[in-house]
Amino acid sequence: MSLTVVGSIAFDAVTTPFGTREKMLGGAAVHFSLASSFFTDVRVVGPVGDDFGEAEYAVLRTRGTNTDDVEHVPGGETFFWRAHYEYDLNTAHTDDTRLGVFGTFEPKLSQESKDADVLFLANIQPDVQRGVREQSNARFVALDSMNLWIETAKDSLIKTIETVDCVLLNDAEIRQLTGKANLVQAAREIRALGPRVVVAKQGEYGAALLTDEGFFGLPAYPLETVNDPTGAGDSFAGGFVGYLAAHGGDDLSHQTLCRAMAYGTAIASYNVEEFGTERVARLTREEVTERVGELQRITHFVDAPVALRA
Amino acid sequence: MSLTVVGSIAFDAVTTPFGTREKMLGGAAVHFSLASSFFTDVRVVGPVGDDFGEAEYAVLRTRGTNTDDVEHVPGGETFFWRAHYEYDLNTAHTDDTRLGVFGTFEPKLSQESKDADVLFLANIQPDVQRGVREQSNARFVALDSMNLWIETAKDSLIKTIETVDCVLLNDAEIRQLTGKANLVQAAREIRALGPRVVVAKQGEYGAALLTDEGFFGLPAYPLETVNDPTGAGDSFAGGFVGYLAAHGGDDLSHQTLCRAMAYGTAIASYNVEEFGTERVARLTREEVTERVGELQRITHFVDAPVALRA
Repeated sequence: MSLTVVGSIAFDAVTTPFGTREKMLGGAAVHFSLASSFFTDVRVVGPVGDDFGEAEYAVLRTRGTNTDDVEHVPGGETFFWRAHYEYDLNTAHTDDTRLGVFGTFEPKLSQESKDADVLFLANIQPDVQRGVREQSNARFVALDSMNLWIETAKDSLIKTIETVDCVLLNDAEIRQLTGKANLVQAAREIRALGPRVVVAKQGEYGAALLTDEGFFGLPAYPLETVNDPTGAGDSFAGGFVGYLAAHGGDDLSHQTLCRAMAYGTAIASYNVEEFGTERVARLTREEVTERVGELQRITHFVDAPVALRA
Repeated sequence: MSLTVVGSIAFDAVTTPFGTREKMLGGAAVHFSLASSFFTDVRVVGPVGDDFGEAEYAVLRTRGTNTDDVEHVPGGETFFWRAHYEYDLNTAHTDDTRLGVFGTFEPKLSQESKDADVLFLANIQPDVQRGVREQSNARFVALDSMNLWIETAKDSLIKTIETVDCVLLNDAEIRQLTGKANLVQAAREIRALGPRVVVAKQGEYGAALLTDEGFFGLPAYPLETVNDPTGAGDSFAGGFVGYLAAHGGDDLSHQTLCRAMAYGTAIASYNVEEFGTERVARLTREEVTERVGELQRITHFVDAPVALRA
């Protein structure tokens, strides 16, 4: 059981109403790796610059993640993102983006990364995603994307979606991509392109799974303390895709997908409790299991007969 | 088991991307009554004008709702509301409001309405709600409100909230009322005022229940066809409060509240499939039961052991 993730490795400067970090480890591939490493052998593929040091590698290697395919670009600077959040933590306001080595990233997968059972294409330019997909021998491929590519590279994104098994997007992005306001219709349109599985990420409202076999809705875990939402979506994806990778990537039964949603939701809920990777880097498997159980409890109801009137 | 609802009875003119109705029965008390009438004896209290005819009374009396306390104001005009929705069906754009007889409504409850086990105060000026609450002998009282009263009559609204057992509001209203962005904290603040039960209505994302005993989150039923969201919140409230009234209003156990949420969600999902009261007026108990079962199915997952890595 093995999983390759290709995406950004970054330094983030983030201010929320609850604190500030001037330079912390971030990036989609990092958050994804930390979450998925609970489930399977993870290989992370992404570029870093000279400013990326042993301390950052150590975090990336949490729970055994393999960093052999992290590409160090001599003389380069690691992708840097500065943003702030208002009290509405659903919206990140980007203040600065310096792509650095990520701007010219051409992912080269080692044979081991090509041969992983499962591939996750984190949010990158869709041509680049498709190039990676073509190198890979994975049995199950999932991708994330963003509004920027829907606006500037929609044809390429659609071509890439046609080659994958699973799409994870915000529900606003699903609507934007399809031009359909109704999520059920929009997800069906995406599935008609090829992917069997569509996951709509809904931020503080949780996530929804839409497949031909059915629908599954899971609220976010209710938290009293949310310090930094950065990376929540990638942590969710890491838990979701990681869980599927633990099953070899070829068990896509409805209940397995539902469980994967729960693991993604559980890990994402820890992620936002603290800044950046702080919480998930020291998260224990007992804590993950406990929160999955709590998610079960807070969504569970049993109908009891009630005499309805005609 | 009996339930009194006090609120608006209206004619609505509504345009959505999927159709137009120039004059249809609406109003919070109407949608609430139609939903709650599945569960218990309902008495509806609200004012109507000369334009309110036998056809409208007939709809209001669906499943035996008692209209003895509907106050006909001679020479008056029934509350009229005109609105349109864009493709984002979450936001109603009000084009015209003529309060008519609702503008000077001073609810007078008959002895039977006072003695109902359960009282629902639909969205009205909070002074008026409090006056009704003081007339009532109900064991369980719930209220709805809106942003207008939070902005213009917040002190009065808080005084009214202090006298009830349950508050149902949109999550944006809960945040606005408390000044707290975090829903868990905001709901606790409302409970500190008196109510044991807070329900956050979340539109297309469903609803959340927040009590001292716990949290319950339920997604909305996924629909491919939504023609008119008008009345969804009141239908939800009618199903929720109606279910509690069927249990005499004094079973507030967590599982009973969760089931009540499911019945509210199920009926609200039917409400939005067609315009105004069209769908719920002819809804059958079998259909309600069926959708509650579907809600159970689409939220159910069973954890399966997975070997997490340390």
